[in-house]
Amino acid sequence: MANLNGKTSDLRTAFLEVYSVLKSELLNDPAFEWTDDSRQWVERMLDYNVPGGKLNRGLSVIDSYKLLKEGKDLTEEEVFLASALGWCIEWLQAYFLVLDDIMDSSHTRRGQPCWFRVPKVGLIAANDGIILRNQIPRILKKHFREKPYYVDLLDLFNEVEFQTASGQMIDLITTIEGEKDLSKYSLSLHRRIVQYKTAYYSFYLPVACALLMSGENLDNHIDVKNVLIDMGIYFQVQDDYLDCFGNPETIGKIGTDIEDFKCSWLVVKALEVCNDEQKKILFENYGNPDPSKVAKIKALYNDINLQGIFSEFESKSYEKITSSIEAHPSKPVQAVLKSFLGKIYKRQK
Amino acid sequence: MANLNGKTSDLRTAFLEVYSVLKSELLNDPAFEWTDDSRQWVERMLDYNVPGGKLNRGLSVIDSYKLLKEGKDLTEEEVFLASALGWCIEWLQAYFLVLDDIMDSSHTRRGQPCWFRVPKVGLIAANDGIILRNQIPRILKKHFREKPYYVDLLDLFNEVEFQTASGQMIDLITTIEGEKDLSKYSLSLHRRIVQYKTAYYSFYLPVACALLMSGENLDNHIDVKNVLIDMGIYFQVQDDYLDCFGNPETIGKIGTDIEDFKCSWLVVKALEVCNDEQKKILFENYGNPDPSKVAKIKALYNDINLQGIFSEFESKSYEKITSSIEAHPSKPVQAVLKSFLGKIYKRQK
Ligand SMILES: [Mg+2]
Ligand SMILES: [Mg+2]
Ligand SMILES: [Mg+2]
Ligand SMILES: [Mg+2]
Ligand SMILES: [Mg+2]
Ligand SMILES: [Mg+2]
Repeated sequence: MANLNGKTSDLRTAFLEVYSVLKSELLNDPAFEWTDDSRQWVERMLDYNVPGGKLNRGLSVIDSYKLLKEGKDLTEEEVFLASALGWCIEWLQAYFLVLDDIMDSSHTRRGQPCWFRVPKVGLIAANDGIILRNQIPRILKKHFREKPYYVDLLDLFNEVEFQTASGQMIDLITTIEGEKDLSKYSLSLHRRIVQYKTAYYSFYLPVACALLMSGENLDNHIDVKNVLIDMGIYFQVQDDYLDCFGNPETIGKIGTDIEDFKCSWLVVKALEVCNDEQKKILFENYGNPDPSKVAKIKALYNDINLQGIFSEFESKSYEKITSSIEAHPSKPVQAVLKSFLGKIYKRQK
Repeated sequence: MANLNGKTSDLRTAFLEVYSVLKSELLNDPAFEWTDDSRQWVERMLDYNVPGGKLNRGLSVIDSYKLLKEGKDLTEEEVFLASALGWCIEWLQAYFLVLDDIMDSSHTRRGQPCWFRVPKVGLIAANDGIILRNQIPRILKKHFREKPYYVDLLDLFNEVEFQTASGQMIDLITTIEGEKDLSKYSLSLHRRIVQYKTAYYSFYLPVACALLMSGENLDNHIDVKNVLIDMGIYFQVQDDYLDCFGNPETIGKIGTDIEDFKCSWLVVKALEVCNDEQKKILFENYGNPDPSKVAKIKALYNDINLQGIFSEFESKSYEKITSSIEAHPSKPVQAVLKSFLGKIYKRQK
């Protein structure tokens, strides 16, 4: 196996090797009597949906675990286990995305048609999402059943999935078709959606996995959780910002949050600072595919200097997060958190 | 609280009281920051989807546990815990049904529109299914975290959910739209679908919950699992039989398995015993809403005496299951299994 103690490209290669191992174990899971058809179906479904993303969440379990070990080389077993946990997060993400794309009637994902749009898949994709989700406890049971932290791992994945589904729910019910109502949008609703739908599984979960593997009790790390949630919120605010103000060539897509009536940080911040006349413009033009309406929103965002407001938010968040990190008693934990922050601060994509 | 040691109607009332307790705990779950809207949404969704069925699966946890205690009165705590596990199974069932109805484009369920057909719900129902599923570990954590069998409960629910989703998958991929092919149907495929999609969660899971609560190790009860799986298969064969030969007034619906191209025990058995000419009739007429085609299938079923073949299957199953039960060393376990069998043998609905 390639050496995960080495450089980034090796790390990615070694991580992908673990994917192959896990996949072949799952395709031979003795808890089910496979048919040829079902084995082929699941293999194609996994290859289509699991490994094609940036893998940041998964890789950061290994990164974090290495930092917690303060530079000591990891054993083969540790590398494999940290990678397996990383893949569990990628599996969780794949499950959420497959179902989210169905619920949003999306067309593409990661540069290819959404899974449910693939011929002959259709709504079978909903069950495939469930299959992805169900493979996580299979991976955990096979590789962690005898670890002292096994039950905490199960609790962790259960709690984070619950929080993510709850965040998805408030996102869905505030944007019910035919009830577009900008007056429902607020900074506190935005924060709540982002915190639950994204931050727990994308930021807290990888570090929590690494902490459990290191023998830590998560009840003693509420402060770590809080910092990571703050980073997750900051990350999503950047995402909302880049959707409108980023360079499409750099971010790899053309943002459509305005057209899509998204509860973006930009629109909730605009609602907060606008005068009555400007608010009227927001209400009349937000959430419409007409390019002239989109242009009016963008002009308004410029009038109120949203870019400046964002820059200020960015510095304030950075300061707040940094001082929380520095207040933490453990240097290795500080290193983990700083590494996360370093990856996202002032990102352009 | 009504007394669960009493008669059946009391038992149902007491069981429903536990539903109210669990619901109110879930609606105040501290792992999520509720909004008024989201709390109302979940309450309505739960009341619509969870308690409206026959509750057989849930109630049988309490029945089984009482039999394992050999008639000793249960404490209040035992009644509550057995009921909570029973409700976890009802929650699991609700989750499967909400998603299955989406995947099957069904119209009604339990005499009302399917949840996704309710105005303003639509595909939000997919996430509601996920919410239902995620509430199970919340219930388990709140009430069982300190029990010695907590980790086994989590493993049990995870494994059974995995098996059910896998059974659903083979059901879905063998009936892909536009690929109706009767030659794929066989007794072994039918058995596999039924065993995984239905038998584990409907028959094995309630008894396994009761065994865990009684301090048993499930690894020592593989024979109990096997008997219950056989009963689950027998139960589904009855279901398939009654769909065609049952009295619609008694079973409460008009069967449409022939029209729907279902992989029913009747059609796979017919495929097995038909001559070439009769097979041709099956291939030409099965899976079509045209009443004259349905009539041809039914006439064929009579020609080959499917009712007689079913009766023989019924007696053979009963004998086989009974002798497996009687081979079991424990009388209380025998009582649990016999009680299950008694509820389904020669049922007309
Ligand atoms: Mg989406
Ligand atoms: Mg969405
Ligand atoms: Mg975005
Ligand atoms: Mg159905
Ligand atoms: Mg179905
Ligand atoms: Mg049926």
